[in-house]
Amino acid sequence: MNQPTEPKADKSGVRRHNLSLVLRTVHEAGETTRAAVAARVGLTRPAVSSLVEQLLDLGFLVESGKTFSGQAGRPGTVLKPADTGSAGLGVEINVDYVTVCVVDLTGTDRVRHTERLDNRAAAPDVLTRAARIAAQALDAAAELRLAPAGAGLALPGLVSGGAVRQAPNLGWNEVDAERLFGDALAALRPGTKGLPLTSDNEANMAALAELRFGTHGDLRTFLHLTGEIGVGGAIVVHGELLRGAHGFAGEIGHLVVDADGPRCRCGSRGCLEQYAGQAALVGAAGATGVPDLVRRAEAADPRALAALGDAGRMLGRALSGAVNLLDPEAVVLGGIYPRLMPWLAPALADELADRVVSGLWTPDAGRLRPASAATDASRGAAALVLHDVLADPLAYAPTTDD
Amino acid sequence: MNQPTEPKADKSGVRRHNLSLVLRTVHEAGETTRAAVAARVGLTRPAVSSLVEQLLDLGFLVESGKTFSGQAGRPGTVLKPADTGSAGLGVEINVDYVTVCVVDLTGTDRVRHTERLDNRAAAPDVLTRAARIAAQALDAAAELRLAPAGAGLALPGLVSGGAVRQAPNLGWNEVDAERLFGDALAALRPGTKGLPLTSDNEANMAALAELRFGTHGDLRTFLHLTGEIGVGGAIVVHGELLRGAHGFAGEIGHLVVDADGPRCRCGSRGCLEQYAGQAALVGAAGATGVPDLVRRAEAADPRALAALGDAGRMLGRALSGAVNLLDPEAVVLGGIYPRLMPWLAPALADELADRVVSGLWTPDAGRLRPASAATDASRGAAALVLHDVLADPLAYAPTTDD
Repeated sequence: MNQPTEPKADKSGVRRHNLSLVLRTVHEAGETTRAAVAARVGLTRPAVSSLVEQLLDLGFLVESGKTFSGQAGRPGTVLKPADTGSAGLGVEINVDYVTVCVVDLTGTDRVRHTERLDNRAAAPDVLTRAARIAAQALDAAAELRLAPAGAGLALPGLVSGGAVRQAPNLGWNEVDAERLFGDALAALRPGTKGLPLTSDNEANMAALAELRFGTHGDLRTFLHLTGEIGVGGAIVVHGELLRGAHGFAGEIGHLVVDADGPRCRCGSRGCLEQYAGQAALVGAAGATGVPDLVRRAEAADPRALAALGDAGRMLGRALSGAVNLLDPEAVVLGGIYPRLMPWLAPALADELADRVVSGLWTPDAGRLRPASAATDASRGAAALVLHDVLADPLAYAPTTDD
Repeated sequence: MNQPTEPKADKSGVRRHNLSLVLRTVHEAGETTRAAVAARVGLTRPAVSSLVEQLLDLGFLVESGKTFSGQAGRPGTVLKPADTGSAGLGVEINVDYVTVCVVDLTGTDRVRHTERLDNRAAAPDVLTRAARIAAQALDAAAELRLAPAGAGLALPGLVSGGAVRQAPNLGWNEVDAERLFGDALAALRPGTKGLPLTSDNEANMAALAELRFGTHGDLRTFLHLTGEIGVGGAIVVHGELLRGAHGFAGEIGHLVVDADGPRCRCGSRGCLEQYAGQAALVGAAGATGVPDLVRRAEAADPRALAALGDAGRMLGRALSGAVNLLDPEAVVLGGIYPRLMPWLAPALADELADRVVSGLWTPDAGRLRPASAATDASRGAAALVLHDVLADPLAYAPTTDD
């Protein structure tokens, strides 16, 4: 703080760092002024102006109109992150759909393509399909003058080193996902060759989306569940994902809720997923899908209500264990669960109240929450890309002639 | 590194920091020379010599004999941490015993008093008893010319802010443990008035002891269980305790292993503690205590073997969930479990193999370990005190006349 920039050391680490500092400050504020940025980051006005000029030239920021700050002094020009230029490409491959989104530097989801399809197929085919959807999304983004700075892949299973180690719900083992996706995308759109790729478990990506774009901004330590065909889990501690020794932490879908229950794809019996996963829940309710399940529940169909009550109870049983272990501020439920909360929540809350060591859970304080709207794993994947751009904008600057 | 000391700034933060750096280096090495310290910390020989002289004067280090380093050069004088002077007082209050230990700067447990007694009594009485045992241990330590730099309290329950929030196995709620213990000790030994106190859950303290003094030095991310009357748990991630949002993480003893099982003191049913806690296990085996249980198991008594097999299976069921959530390198079992491993381990290992998502557990790689000998919660409590002394020895230096 109060560390002046060094105008002569234009390419130095200090200036790069300060460019990132200013860009992140504008990004977090949404819109602001040079004076407010200077006050916030502790640099002089002239230093901030110089940095802002460079970020405007490079297309990371735009100016729009004048504002009165409410304080004494001249009105300032409003600064905003650009809604053109560098963007994050987020790709979620799940069991029964692929979602691709393109998120601009303002954090807005500008292009979103979702295709429902059965991905329980050979990995190269699935990743080629995902690349095709991504290529079309990038075409749409190009019309909005957005170009991907990188791509994040959200994958359902154990992910490390760019590969899916194991995804029982897809039947995948040791699938080199980043390479297969990157090659397929470069074959379709040669301009993407060399695009930086990053990948993680879809549950971790969804938790990241909640952290970066969600409305639960007060939460720093929480459990995040996503109900899909499987039940994904992620653990956030002090604002960071807890990844474990090998990067595989958070497999809450395979907590045992009934030791003698039905066999699970993972090899165990009575895993949470066998009761609260989408396939199990829809099947137990005799429904054809989640919309049909909601309709049946609204019509008080006994079988649907019983299946939802059972799923809520099993969610509560698993979550009570996770809360006892991890002492989070809250549990956030995403995926199919927010729509189903009216029917899941009563049994779920009862189990938590009964089974969490009593000092650890107060049922009345907003500790059980539906995930924020528009936070899903594809947005989390795009957030990882944007994080890299914000951390070092010069590395993503368009090459210029001078 | 290579940051020279500033001899004129004798009281400065830099010199305090360097004193700590040299003391910690000698402490970690056990014994070493000035030259080896200089090479290790990146300070000059004269700077290290000056720091060492001060640490010798203040009584934190001692010299003994000469060593040949095996490299070219003069033999160096051997430096060791002093086994007199500042020591850590560790106090563990558990359901059926109190242990007090005094650990010197070499890390050696010099005085250890354990008394088996029933602590399910009023908190002031129990803490007064513990203070009496601590006072006697301090008398013995004084004869060894050791003086406490502080005291750590290891307590069975949810601990925060110096107080026990809840300890179901003791029947305590909101007990101001540090104050009660400190006042009782000061009443018995007025010289301890103002002694710095710190407190934590006994399971966390046992995990800290394993980290600092244990033989599993390779482990940085692990689960640590201690079998006592209750089953304590602690989670270590990248060498640090995971404490959760309110400091209560790690309550593995209350993971549900049989949803319809017996009622637990915590209010839930079928908690791990109801099968694998000492009281439950000894009771199910029809034994009079742990030594009797071991004798019965060695004699292949069917009831003892059945109880141990059942406890192992339930431990495995709970641990499989914890491993799925946290992806640790290993699980370390302490308290009564190391003695019982021959009978617990088979069923425990089977459950882990069956129930952990398969990429996450390889049963053959030393991932299930007994706790190291001589690592218990009282040593962990003493380690916290020693950590503070090593971090800033000047703050604990005896006052001198000059």
